[in-house]
Amino acid sequence: MTGRNRSAGRAPHTSRRAFLRAGLATGAAALGAPALAAGNPENQPPNVAEWSRYLGEGVAVRAYGKPSKHEANVIRRDVQWLTASRESSVSFTPLHALDGNITPNGLLFERHHAGIAEVDPADYRLMLHGLVDKPLIFTLDDLKRMPRVNRPYFCECAANSGMEWRGAQLNGCQYTHGMVHCVMYTGVPLKVLLEEAGLKPNAKWLLLEGGDSAAMTRSLPLAKALEDVLVAYRMNGEMLYPENGYPARIVVPGWEANMWVKWIRRIEVGDEPWHTREETSKYTDLLENGKARRFTYVMDAKSVITNPSPQAPLNHKSGFTVLSGLAWSGRGPIKRVDVSLDGGRNWRAARLDGPVWDKALTRFYVEFDWDGGELLLQSRAMDETGYVQPTKDELRKVRGVNSIYHNNGIQTWLVRKNGEVENVGVS
Amino acid sequence: MTGRNRSAGRAPHTSRRAFLRAGLATGAAALGAPALAAGNPENQPPNVAEWSRYLGEGVAVRAYGKPSKHEANVIRRDVQWLTASRESSVSFTPLHALDGNITPNGLLFERHHAGIAEVDPADYRLMLHGLVDKPLIFTLDDLKRMPRVNRPYFCECAANSGMEWRGAQLNGCQYTHGMVHCVMYTGVPLKVLLEEAGLKPNAKWLLLEGGDSAAMTRSLPLAKALEDVLVAYRMNGEMLYPENGYPARIVVPGWEANMWVKWIRRIEVGDEPWHTREETSKYTDLLENGKARRFTYVMDAKSVITNPSPQAPLNHKSGFTVLSGLAWSGRGPIKRVDVSLDGGRNWRAARLDGPVWDKALTRFYVEFDWDGGELLLQSRAMDETGYVQPTKDELRKVRGVNSIYHNNGIQTWLVRKNGEVENVGVS
Repeated sequence: MTGRNRSAGRAPHTSRRAFLRAGLATGAAALGAPALAAGNPENQPPNVAEWSRYLGEGVAVRAYGKPSKHEANVIRRDVQWLTASRESSVSFTPLHALDGNITPNGLLFERHHAGIAEVDPADYRLMLHGLVDKPLIFTLDDLKRMPRVNRPYFCECAANSGMEWRGAQLNGCQYTHGMVHCVMYTGVPLKVLLEEAGLKPNAKWLLLEGGDSAAMTRSLPLAKALEDVLVAYRMNGEMLYPENGYPARIVVPGWEANMWVKWIRRIEVGDEPWHTREETSKYTDLLENGKARRFTYVMDAKSVITNPSPQAPLNHKSGFTVLSGLAWSGRGPIKRVDVSLDGGRNWRAARLDGPVWDKALTRFYVEFDWDGGELLLQSRAMDETGYVQPTKDELRKVRGVNSIYHNNGIQTWLVRKNGEVENVGVS
Repeated sequence: MTGRNRSAGRAPHTSRRAFLRAGLATGAAALGAPALAAGNPENQPPNVAEWSRYLGEGVAVRAYGKPSKHEANVIRRDVQWLTASRESSVSFTPLHALDGNITPNGLLFERHHAGIAEVDPADYRLMLHGLVDKPLIFTLDDLKRMPRVNRPYFCECAANSGMEWRGAQLNGCQYTHGMVHCVMYTGVPLKVLLEEAGLKPNAKWLLLEGGDSAAMTRSLPLAKALEDVLVAYRMNGEMLYPENGYPARIVVPGWEANMWVKWIRRIEVGDEPWHTREETSKYTDLLENGKARRFTYVMDAKSVITNPSPQAPLNHKSGFTVLSGLAWSGRGPIKRVDVSLDGGRNWRAARLDGPVWDKALTRFYVEFDWDGGELLLQSRAMDETGYVQPTKDELRKVRGVNSIYHNNGIQTWLVRKNGEVENVGVS
């Protein structure tokens, strides 16, 4: 674990304690929580609520829990025109409706190439062969009997924000940025399996093959496999859900999610990459000069403001306001996030809150006194290497507008005076 | 955030890298993952699996995800003879079927006094009154507009392991220790609400009252409220589930779960405790001399081996074996966990893996070469204060056997030669 916890009080340029004091100062009136004496009838509770008068359901009625019926809108959503079929599509995490930096298991974005493989764990096998001394086949029980580690990582599709290269296309951070999640993964370091099999001296690359009917296949440099890649079978403590690769998937910390092969069934060790469809025709970046960048694995530093955002407007007129968002980087822990309320003219340091882990989502907040006027919201992440998230224009200068993948440009939301929020093509 | 991440490599007395090497050395043969050349037919995969031949379900069929049907046994379970009714009962987290230190939202233990209050968030109100300058009523929207923090904490019922005072009563760590969970909570520091209302000089205690029909009520010292107590509305990113207090509950880090009042509807500020039913007739510890300990809030350092355990036997004959468990303390981060394979005669330091947070569950492992003989498994936690988890006998000497609550004694599992595991009354 190379990550760190960072106290909110140690976030750059601010102290949480001082901040809360400031927040209170502006918040007392602005929050609109009226004194009882003031007698705001709108805030009066019902005489005695139904739920305070009768026994509720007993235990174990919900042996496996689920959200309140009042949260029925907090779901993964897809965009049907985006792909040819729902079996080769994506459904997005509702980032605007979440907080913190752990994604709950029911809401991890999903992306499939041939639908959800429903694997029977008793018949699950993982084959490891190629340039090894001793080819091996592992059952799920074998994997569960091996030394394991628990690591929180973000997982981001290379195509996340892909529609935004040419301007504002989708209205809501669920759609513009919802192909990312962050959970605590449990798994066996791939290094352990490789050492178990014994690597031949000329081993340099791995082929990862999924058990779905697309046989999703990617080449992985051996050095990365030996560094931190996992064969994971749990997320946030429980077994992976089917749509996330049950019973086992590859975890490639900081690298594009397409390489995190789900339902992993075969790992072949070789001496060069395989140039599969998913690393030639797809998951490459076509530049203006007609050449394509390939093997662009790392997800660079990125951030997005989740609240307010188009699906989560401000529903007050002015006053104390909490702005919140997520930042992450495939190159290391997030060091700092800056936020602008005026489209990039002025910036202020956000408060990073909760654990700041290596290659994981990091939650940030800016609390401010909204004057009720229009806002142009932007966030800009910096990671431990000093890399700063670019504007979309800066990205376009280098990469053109043919790309689908690896858009980590700064996102802009326009907040109108009525509190509604719109995705606008600025920067 | 006063917690820390601790690299597994920095766990006491061991290094993960060295460990994995050792594990490999013993594991290669013992793991039973046969070389392909060895041709163990049992490990051969089916010719071509069903799931590799046909398209699976498309996206958004499961707008909210759930576990594989093959994991249907991984559920919360209750013990019907334990309480008079299921509305005043508990259902336990299946610790033996989980890993890492985050509990997935569907499996948080639940304990109710009048069943699950089904609160309509539009009608939810939180009243704050008593010895304050300005009594306030907060809607859920008010709470969501306030400064908030994200903190991972364990939540343990004071009665967890309560049946074990007199000996081995329940066969499985789900039942002996399953009244504990650990999630990332998001909420408003209670301090912020109290400062908003303004405390009178003689304010010393708070009354916390739940919105269920039991009106669950506890007294909380003001000093703790100002230190780290939250009015939380999210767990692992999403809104609380109904059985966990939707839409808002109290979080009292390190203190017994009975004080974490769910469906919180009223906080009264006073100058002395209220001596409610839940802190007089219940949640006190009757000693041998007929006197009862009261206001015993803190959950002392504790641990349990989750695998192997009675519900999770060993299913191999001998060889490389991963033992795993959880440790936690209400007084600070876990510093060290020792494990004995022979009923407390010899101890070895466990590998702490994943983040080690303040007042949160910590995952530990011991990898060893099992000779196939009987084992008497015990684990012993030490926290940052130097406090060491006691044996049950040590506890009984001080507290007698009348207690129900606050049993943090060392648990013993007997592993038989056939791999079956039993809860035994040792220590």
